[in-house]
Amino acid sequence: MRELALAIPPAPTPFGAYVEAIQSGSLLFLSGMLPVVGHSPLYMGLVGKDISVADGYDAARTACLSGLAAARSYLGSLNRIRTIAKLGVYIAAPSDFREHPKVADGASELLLSVFGPDRLPPRIVLGVSSIPLGMPVEIELVLEIET
Amino acid sequence: MRELALAIPPAPTPFGAYVEAIQSGSLLFLSGMLPVVGHSPLYMGLVGKDISVADGYDAARTACLSGLAAARSYLGSLNRIRTIAKLGVYIAAPSDFREHPKVADGASELLLSVFGPDRLPPRIVLGVSSIPLGMPVEIELVLEIET
Amino acid sequence: MRELALAIPPAPTPFGAYVEAIQSGSLLFLSGMLPVVGHSPLYMGLVGKDISVADGYDAARTACLSGLAAARSYLGSLNRIRTIAKLGVYIAAPSDFREHPKVADGASELLLSVFGPDRLPPRIVLGVSSIPLGMPVEIELVLEIET
Repeated sequence: MRELALAIPPAPTPFGAYVEAIQSGSLLFLSGMLPVVGHSPLYMGLVGKDISVADGYDAARTACLSGLAAARSYLGSLNRIRTIAKLGVYIAAPSDFREHPKVADGASELLLSVFGPDRLPPRIVLGVSSIPLGMPVEIELVLEIET
Repeated sequence: MRELALAIPPAPTPFGAYVEAIQSGSLLFLSGMLPVVGHSPLYMGLVGKDISVADGYDAARTACLSGLAAARSYLGSLNRIRTIAKLGVYIAAPSDFREHPKVADGASELLLSVFGPDRLPPRIVLGVSSIPLGMPVEIELVLEIET
Repeated sequence: MRELALAIPPAPTPFGAYVEAIQSGSLLFLSGMLPVVGHSPLYMGLVGKDISVADGYDAARTACLSGLAAARSYLGSLNRIRTIAKLGVYIAAPSDFREHPKVADGASELLLSVFGPDRLPPRIVLGVSSIPLGMPVEIELVLEIET
């Protein structure tokens, strides 16, 4: 896990009156993660209308990477993550969008590469009408950690 | 609970790099459940536009039944479920849709019939723009289980 | 916390076959909270189309206040709340809506005023196509409580 962890970007910072992560028992709840680098959006708009499914995949991967960065910032090390209890992938898309799994796999395959096949999470995927600041994908993570 | 349990369909299988269920402490987190029988959608489209509220109710019931199937597959028996911590009902619908509670009751009334009135869960209901593969309803369940 | 608590309205009552709150271990899961006073909606429609961002802020605050009312009704006192594990803010809005954080701050700033800066929660904010009964905002809360 260590080498991949080196490629993790700086942890995101909140856009308002909230925190990026909070621990409750052995669960770590993270804020919704966006495909930003620093505070700059990597992609904008609706998947399947303004950006392609391939861009949506990359947006999901980037947002998930921000989640790992937030977790590492809180925990000190990703090695304290035992498993992933929830992966939520929310995709801003038109109502006739069908390719949610291909977008969500951007997050899932990142988690697969970091944590391996034995710690794949359950996944909730929804197409929504908009995401804060006009971004195309938002990621929710709930992690089980060593306490 | 046993007789109803006999009517539970085979457990769903993932459409991507994720799992149907994961346990963290005494919580069992399930993936978003769709109104599919096997891998075939039972309903497609938006509730209130492409399908009726009554069909939406049945879609919610069917998706929730898939959730119980996934839980039974993971746990061995539904008898290990102590309570339901979260029921999320996500309904693909036009922005002027109003009948969310009638659709969500398809899931709630199934849970009522299986677990009885003392184990009714809190419920989050949202109208979304789309659901994976164009289906009308997705169900999220978090269960508290005997460990 | 006591004085603010006095301004908390009566606890909401369910619109269907569900409960407002359930405890699992040290977590209290609440149903989606709406901007209602009694069973009457305080606001209706889409934020940014039918109502203003300022009204959306107030709707988020009102819905969050209902969540605290439901928690107090369940717990006896808000003093049993140790921290807030999740704040979800779901905003019914057109697909070109951008001002999600300003609406969500209605909930966040209420929690800030009640619980102080050291117990700010992580936050998931989404723009959705509709919310039950046509309301503009729905709030999800998961609380960590003293058991």
